[in-house]
Amino acid sequence: MNEQFIWKLRKVVGTQFVLLSAEDLICYGYDAQHVEHRPEAVVRPANADEVQEIIRLANEDGVACTPRGAGTGLSGGSVASHGGFILDLCRMNRLLDIDRENLLATVEPGVVTADLHKAVEAVGLMYPPDPGSMKVSTIGGNVAENAGGLRAIKYGVTKDYIMALEGVSPTGEFFTAGARTMKSVSGYDLARLMCGSEGTLGVFTKIVLKLIPLPKHRRSALASFPTMEDAARAVSGIISAGIMPATLEIMDNVTVKAVEEFKGLGLPTDAGALLLLEVDGAQSQVEEESSQAAEIMKEHKASNVQVAADADERDRIWEGRRAALAALTRVRPTTVLEDATVPRSALAEMVHAVNEIAERHSLMIGTFGHAGDGNLHPTILTDERDHEEMARVEQAIDEIFEVALKLGGTVSGEHGIGFSKARYLPAEMGEGRMNMMRAIKIALDPKGILNPGKVFE
Amino acid sequence: MNEQFIWKLRKVVGTQFVLLSAEDLICYGYDAQHVEHRPEAVVRPANADEVQEIIRLANEDGVACTPRGAGTGLSGGSVASHGGFILDLCRMNRLLDIDRENLLATVEPGVVTADLHKAVEAVGLMYPPDPGSMKVSTIGGNVAENAGGLRAIKYGVTKDYIMALEGVSPTGEFFTAGARTMKSVSGYDLARLMCGSEGTLGVFTKIVLKLIPLPKHRRSALASFPTMEDAARAVSGIISAGIMPATLEIMDNVTVKAVEEFKGLGLPTDAGALLLLEVDGAQSQVEEESSQAAEIMKEHKASNVQVAADADERDRIWEGRRAALAALTRVRPTTVLEDATVPRSALAEMVHAVNEIAERHSLMIGTFGHAGDGNLHPTILTDERDHEEMARVEQAIDEIFEVALKLGGTVSGEHGIGFSKARYLPAEMGEGRMNMMRAIKIALDPKGILNPGKVFE
Repeated sequence: MNEQFIWKLRKVVGTQFVLLSAEDLICYGYDAQHVEHRPEAVVRPANADEVQEIIRLANEDGVACTPRGAGTGLSGGSVASHGGFILDLCRMNRLLDIDRENLLATVEPGVVTADLHKAVEAVGLMYPPDPGSMKVSTIGGNVAENAGGLRAIKYGVTKDYIMALEGVSPTGEFFTAGARTMKSVSGYDLARLMCGSEGTLGVFTKIVLKLIPLPKHRRSALASFPTMEDAARAVSGIISAGIMPATLEIMDNVTVKAVEEFKGLGLPTDAGALLLLEVDGAQSQVEEESSQAAEIMKEHKASNVQVAADADERDRIWEGRRAALAALTRVRPTTVLEDATVPRSALAEMVHAVNEIAERHSLMIGTFGHAGDGNLHPTILTDERDHEEMARVEQAIDEIFEVALKLGGTVSGEHGIGFSKARYLPAEMGEGRMNMMRAIKIALDPKGILNPGKVFE
Repeated sequence: MNEQFIWKLRKVVGTQFVLLSAEDLICYGYDAQHVEHRPEAVVRPANADEVQEIIRLANEDGVACTPRGAGTGLSGGSVASHGGFILDLCRMNRLLDIDRENLLATVEPGVVTADLHKAVEAVGLMYPPDPGSMKVSTIGGNVAENAGGLRAIKYGVTKDYIMALEGVSPTGEFFTAGARTMKSVSGYDLARLMCGSEGTLGVFTKIVLKLIPLPKHRRSALASFPTMEDAARAVSGIISAGIMPATLEIMDNVTVKAVEEFKGLGLPTDAGALLLLEVDGAQSQVEEESSQAAEIMKEHKASNVQVAADADERDRIWEGRRAALAALTRVRPTTVLEDATVPRSALAEMVHAVNEIAERHSLMIGTFGHAGDGNLHPTILTDERDHEEMARVEQAIDEIFEVALKLGGTVSGEHGIGFSKARYLPAEMGEGRMNMMRAIKIALDPKGILNPGKVFE
């Protein structure tokens, strides 16, 4: 990236929106995964036309362009690992429309997820995806990474809510994808192809999302179990009984203790595991399902099933879960958060394997996550300055992924591949799928300028 | 396609499974749209290995291969419009697994949709997509065309239930797509790209579908309206009130009369339009929503709102709707069924436009469809032997699509593009999207052997 290219970028967005100072470049050098890759510049376009011009320039000159929202990702998807510039889309943050008749929200990519939640809930609607970083993360980033969250078990993930897109292709062409209609089979489903493509196939400039009516009632409960395996078996029992909670989360003893120390919420620190559950819907359904779920948990050795009596108690239950990652990061200097996901029937087996791996490598692993989705976040608490320990950490991660795949799972439930998991991807995909994916990438981005080094090694 | 190629096919599947007689080729020359394109041969593989060998041969020799399920499509997707052979997947019809813990069904492509419904309902689960042809159509065809149906308003369409695939690429390579886990962001979403690709990007040999718990209660209602516009406005009213019926269907007077004459169900033949509705879920929700919906319909000029008192009454309501297309085909020799879809808020406008187009061209159009999705099926009742009238039919279809697109809609809600709508597609897609789609097609199928002439003109 030479001086002349910088001048071209300045001409498109204005000098003040091309950042070059070390302070800025350091900030944009990280995502939530804490591996630094400093970009050569940061460009902050104001609208779709500017995005198009920037990508055209990048494609002409063969300069790497890494699209970025709030940078809350956990797999390096939004850092410029292969040089070039960051395309920061946060200035494009208008919530353009909430269409109550068609249950659609139209947003620019820089809208913050929680802001969208608030806006649609104010008119009795709901946008279900609720990634852990939702107070900071942007919708554009959520779509690029196909963000999940706590409500995925009942409501699905971002790709289940993406209706239509406008964007710019890697060669600088405007494109549309999807439709504003509930049904459409016109052409290939490019909207879903873009969702989860991690900024490698296109940059979004406008996003149309599906909304649903806000459930009228909800009820939360918390239960202690002697072991993680018991809790995992209770999860299977609940789902098999035809109950579909809005949220069904698990925390192991390491995590519970860390949260309690951090927040002092009165959690049972002697529990081997906690399950946190919320059901929602019509009043009678909520009552029926919560008491049925409580019964099933008791049958699976749960002691101390607390059903939240009011909003305060409910908030306290979820405050603990939301604080899990932050609490674990306080325990030791370095936190390595993983995202292996298995079919939910394999949850108990997975939990057992993670514990076994932790013991064998003498590592401290706190495990929490979306039990109802089989989406665990085994979090290794370590110290990156200790090279010997870090070698064991690497080994443990390899083994965790290996087990997840053996159990019919995936190496990433919701954090994406980015660059940090690219080397694990072929084992999951197989050769045929890798070849098809590569063919699509090359077809749409022949010069390889859009987010190089991500997804593919 | 020469004699030698036929011999190669015979070697793969056995002589009896390569059909060449005129009687067979005529049968495979049609889908439900009734335009004949006789294939040169029909090949009926028994398993994935045979599928792979066949596609390898086709790719080597550059012979066109058209995958086909039950041939119930309505846009010509499964007929060999560009010569070559039909790849009939109906022998691969094993229901391999119903996984109750993970709520997944694994099937071969030739499983009949209604058979899957029965099998999963027997264990208290539900596979929601219910296309009109479900008693005959296959899951493979449903996935290829992203089939919709009556329950899409609440439960979505086939692409909302496709979890994972195994298949063969156009170059004859095995591939997998998707995951068996509820969450996965590993690599591009090829499963959703394949869903709705109309047999142009790959052939499926195994399909994993998401299931949901079967709703415990349901209630149906039927209401008469003075005009289609009144009924359409009632639809918007119901959705805006936060009610999400499982099904919300509309029939115009032409359709009601045709159904009544065909079936004698006691439908109100003087009604300008009927709405047919079903809500499902927990008991109290069903009661609350059905009475609230009835109130809203009355506010929108509905007379005679009948709530089904028992299963018999319920069945009678839906028998009428299910018979709509068959009833209309009895009125005149030729039926041209369209599939234009608009955002549901534009339903009244669309209905008005279709009526105006019918009048202006002196055509008889019966309109029915999935009002809750904005997915109408304006059905032109005509006679293909009358060339002058057919010219007016063509004109009317052009105008219907034009209005649908102007209202923010799509040229196909659920029937696909096939070859019959390929010429309308660019107007909806725009240049950028057509270019991306073409690039993907060429990247995955460089010789263009898989279902040529479909989707792209």
